[in-house]
Amino acid sequence: MTSLSELDLLEKTVSFTAEDERQLRLAADVLVDQLDEVLDAWFRPHPHLYQYFSSPDGALDIRYVEAVRKRSGEWILDTCRRPHDQAWLDAVHEIGLRHHRTKKNLTDGVASVPHIPLRYVIAFIYHTIEVIKPFLGKKGHDSDDVRRMAEAWSKSVILQVALWSRVYAKDGDW
Amino acid sequence: MTSLSELDLLEKTVSFTAEDERQLRLAADVLVDQLDEVLDAWFRPHPHLYQYFSSPDGALDIRYVEAVRKRSGEWILDTCRRPHDQAWLDAVHEIGLRHHRTKKNLTDGVASVPHIPLRYVIAFIYHTIEVIKPFLGKKGHDSDDVRRMAEAWSKSVILQVALWSRVYAKDGDW
Repeated sequence: MTSLSELDLLEKTVSFTAEDERQLRLAADVLVDQLDEVLDAWFRPHPHLYQYFSSPDGALDIRYVEAVRKRSGEWILDTCRRPHDQAWLDAVHEIGLRHHRTKKNLTDGVASVPHIPLRYVIAFIYHTIEVIKPFLGKKGHDSDDVRRMAEAWSKSVILQVALWSRVYAKDGDW
Repeated sequence: MTSLSELDLLEKTVSFTAEDERQLRLAADVLVDQLDEVLDAWFRPHPHLYQYFSSPDGALDIRYVEAVRKRSGEWILDTCRRPHDQAWLDAVHEIGLRHHRTKKNLTDGVASVPHIPLRYVIAFIYHTIEVIKPFLGKKGHDSDDVRRMAEAWSKSVILQVALWSRVYAKDGDW
């Protein structure tokens, strides 16, 4: 599994500091009662990605969507509140496995398409860092505070996708 | 190689539109005479990544740094100005190969460490999208214009890292 020293170098690469941790704690307080709206905005606009929540014949599996949606809400708060320790690192790796054919569908016992390609996991970074910004501004913080929270969020999202990518990479390539 | 229809779905995923293309053309005009300063800011702050420009015994290969720096300046302008056609897609794939052990060092005939791990290629997205922002604001554009150019830049950087990742992924995982 990924080690804390590997994490340390990745945190340096995305410039993640103790100040970002503090900003994410603030962001959690801003987002916690807006989670449903955030999830609506996050899930809605990408019909070409619906197949990853659908059975191979193309029917959207609502139960699966709901389960992923619930976990995604928890992920938002975990991203903001959990300390970056080994337990978190292992949990992040588990999320990578659940995007990958190794464990996708298993958690929810569904028969959706078996794998989310790495390129979409990376490309979705853009939407995931942008979607949060308007919600960070809805509790009266000034634009500098919102920017700092958004930067910390961006760093953590990019860091986690870098961690998720481990299961996709060829041996020695990660 | 990557097809234009694969590109199309990735562009949808990062919400890249004709308007972003236009914003990138504007960004090129803003950046073209600041390239040295952009490259200074981009290359300087990550000592733990210097090893990828060094020989295995740790000595920084200045000739190699200079060659990569020159190509990076061209990459910035290509990112802003080249149309997203098959020739561009192939050129982007080539850049992926040059980060990966497949072709790293070959272009410049150097004996540096043989491979840049995927996790750093992904994690470096943060710095690459942030470093450009102050420079976009230096030619008198208002903050909305700067934000639009920065968004287009972010989309293209994330899109290209998604394309670069192809050579790192296990068969069928990309």
